[in-house]
Amino acid sequence: MDTESFRKYGHEFIDWLADYFENIEKYPVVPRVQPGEIIKQFPVSPPHSGEPMDDIFRDFQTQVVPGITHWQHPGWMAYFPANNSPESVLAELLTAGLGAQCMIWQTSPVAAELEERVMDWLRQMIGLPETFTGVIQDTASTATLTALLTAREKATGLQSNLKGIEKKLRVYAGTEAHSSIEKGVKIAGYGKENLRMIPTDDAFAMIPEALQQAIEEDLAAGYQPACVVAAIGSTSSMAMDPVDAIAAVCKKYNVWLHVDAAFAGTAAVVPELRDFMKGTELADSFVFNPHKWMLTNFDCTAYFVQDPGMLIQTFEIHPEYLKTAADKQVKNYRDWGIPLGRRFRALKLWFVIRSYGIEGIQAMVREHVRLAALFADWIREDKRFEIMAPVQLSLVCFRLNPGGMNEEQLTQLNQEFLQKINSHGDVFMTHTSLRGKYTIRLALGSRTTQERHVKKAWEIVQQAADEILP
Amino acid sequence: MDTESFRKYGHEFIDWLADYFENIEKYPVVPRVQPGEIIKQFPVSPPHSGEPMDDIFRDFQTQVVPGITHWQHPGWMAYFPANNSPESVLAELLTAGLGAQCMIWQTSPVAAELEERVMDWLRQMIGLPETFTGVIQDTASTATLTALLTAREKATGLQSNLKGIEKKLRVYAGTEAHSSIEKGVKIAGYGKENLRMIPTDDAFAMIPEALQQAIEEDLAAGYQPACVVAAIGSTSSMAMDPVDAIAAVCKKYNVWLHVDAAFAGTAAVVPELRDFMKGTELADSFVFNPHKWMLTNFDCTAYFVQDPGMLIQTFEIHPEYLKTAADKQVKNYRDWGIPLGRRFRALKLWFVIRSYGIEGIQAMVREHVRLAALFADWIREDKRFEIMAPVQLSLVCFRLNPGGMNEEQLTQLNQEFLQKINSHGDVFMTHTSLRGKYTIRLALGSRTTQERHVKKAWEIVQQAADEILP
Repeated sequence: MDTESFRKYGHEFIDWLADYFENIEKYPVVPRVQPGEIIKQFPVSPPHSGEPMDDIFRDFQTQVVPGITHWQHPGWMAYFPANNSPESVLAELLTAGLGAQCMIWQTSPVAAELEERVMDWLRQMIGLPETFTGVIQDTASTATLTALLTAREKATGLQSNLKGIEKKLRVYAGTEAHSSIEKGVKIAGYGKENLRMIPTDDAFAMIPEALQQAIEEDLAAGYQPACVVAAIGSTSSMAMDPVDAIAAVCKKYNVWLHVDAAFAGTAAVVPELRDFMKGTELADSFVFNPHKWMLTNFDCTAYFVQDPGMLIQTFEIHPEYLKTAADKQVKNYRDWGIPLGRRFRALKLWFVIRSYGIEGIQAMVREHVRLAALFADWIREDKRFEIMAPVQLSLVCFRLNPGGMNEEQLTQLNQEFLQKINSHGDVFMTHTSLRGKYTIRLALGSRTTQERHVKKAWEIVQQAADEILP
Repeated sequence: MDTESFRKYGHEFIDWLADYFENIEKYPVVPRVQPGEIIKQFPVSPPHSGEPMDDIFRDFQTQVVPGITHWQHPGWMAYFPANNSPESVLAELLTAGLGAQCMIWQTSPVAAELEERVMDWLRQMIGLPETFTGVIQDTASTATLTALLTAREKATGLQSNLKGIEKKLRVYAGTEAHSSIEKGVKIAGYGKENLRMIPTDDAFAMIPEALQQAIEEDLAAGYQPACVVAAIGSTSSMAMDPVDAIAAVCKKYNVWLHVDAAFAGTAAVVPELRDFMKGTELADSFVFNPHKWMLTNFDCTAYFVQDPGMLIQTFEIHPEYLKTAADKQVKNYRDWGIPLGRRFRALKLWFVIRSYGIEGIQAMVREHVRLAALFADWIREDKRFEIMAPVQLSLVCFRLNPGGMNEEQLTQLNQEFLQKINSHGDVFMTHTSLRGKYTIRLALGSRTTQERHVKKAWEIVQQAADEILP
């Protein structure tokens, strides 16, 4: 494609996206397709000769878009948000066009130096102390794995990289902790048997005394406690582990504390919502995802550590072909995480933070939190429903419970209920299990979600309840 | 930003990028900035209020672009290519705009099903047998780590995820293997001491007999050989490990064989260049990067395995909040790699393969290989230079050697020589070390690199030699 064609199709694509943004509510949030239906449209073999862009763009609209799940739909209330913004999309366009591979300073000085700056902006915005240094990673899963690896190195006196794990190491997380912790524990070679799930309280938050007891038991049994992962906002119910009390336990036993605030972290930008951050100043590492709630398109994870030296010692490699004259003066982010290659992701953060300002992000978060509280009030006022966990930030856990049913019946009822809600196409919610109780989650966080969408969701919920209850 | 502003700035950005593509040769490949110079331009604190896009876009042009290393410059002959194309950039724009998070089938059915299809297209294009199944990963580093983890699980009978590594496992790679192998060996908990670097021959290719001997020694000493990583195109010199002979050794001792063809893999699309693939049909896993030489912007790594079940068993997690009704009928790619979150990267591959067709990619690769051979001929004809490794595909390893100098003097001479070459700004080359010999690498692979750019590089090389030699 020559430059003139790029201009032509670029303008067409921009206009198509603008129309998509304007009309997104006309799509069902989740496409109505069956497994295997979409792949049939695509030829089994690649084309020998190139095809015109008109054909490809046509097929994009007729074959691809009907199979997209619309995460940017204002009725997206499932899982967690992947909150996007036009500014972020435009920055991603520039990043793709520049096509720089930012593994080290020399391979794009501005990518390294802008990353350093915007990560410090983020640090200030969420109220982390100056002792923290940030780096962009792809996902919170990867950042948590990174923390587990650094903790492993620290616990073994830098011997695990060299010799593998020869000590009996232990990792701790609340029973509600994210699946990425188990995955990371396996990858890092701790072994799943060495991940202890610490009991949680009625609000699904880790009980610090139980953590301390587990550590004491392990020490007595000859294990070495290596890492505690605390959740600021568990995935299932946005439960807030008490980081301050957990940090005190970690300090006492010299255990690495990693705090996972993947979704909730953005709310720390709002001073009156920031209470949950208490104690994070004592953590060793902290992660949150601007690509969840902070208007930045996936992927963009913000990972902060107190001791970058320890992080670098964990990952540093220094082959001759990557050495440069500037190595001693600059940050080579290849040594701050797992992959060698890196996109210029700081650019979209810079666009987003400058476009919205701290105020703009605060206003959005406050509105989502207000809307979630509103929805929770409606649920509470209708006796057919029950709230399943303390309502934190923009997540509401609820279910239908007309009384007189056992857990099995309630599960079946709510499975049907959720299916009915989602069949409308205007909203999409997902479920979890809280202490064995089937629970529906309403998670707000899309830039486009307004009060009318939450009202609509409430109407759909009520109507589905009317239909499903005798 | 409202939709009309998105349209306005979208068109502006597209036009800016089109101009950038047209004028890229006017930029020095590597910006002339000193460490710390760029970051000074950016305020130390984030803005409280949002700023107009006009200001941000102005600062992008005046503060960001001057600090970019131009990987898409036709004079990019450093490291490896990060070959981009307008089609891929446009697809990335759509991916960003759709903003779907494709962790599982339900969260975007078309992302999962198109990935399945285009990965099979790629498989056919590079001549891997039907027994291979593909998945997109972010980088070859991550894919190689994935292979090391799957091999670990296989070698321990699925016990290492559960218990950590209790056996004495060993990993093998040639002395020229990529640094990501050492990094992966550390992360996966093998321990660097358990990575054996196998001697290489005069062409820097792994010696299969030496591999067999190392395995025999390890078995005798009570180690369990778990994984061999063979390079199809080593980073330093594009050395080709003899995969067929290595595969025979791996089969004999039942050791996982992972083949890393990160850069070179794209050349397998060209039948007459495909010889190096001999034996890959016997490998357990294979990786190459469409984001290196196949016109696809970073990141897009193609990872192929013979046994997806083993891969999934290594990474599978199944928390309640990620369960869906379709799980048994679909591919949930979250279980095919390390991160949970995934971008819709199949879209850009689909755009690229359809736009260029097999023919288009073949033509580009053939031209780059022809140009590298041409440059190598010029080097050979000038007695001041020497070729440092067999010229493979589009990589030429050379240095200045006027005779009568020891290695130390030659290193110093060539460091200055390389600095002089790069100071022109029209080309950018990097160095490596081959058996202790300082070596300059000319690596071709940008879509925009034509014969005139390679001629220009040769002129610059000659001129620098004239200036530096007495």
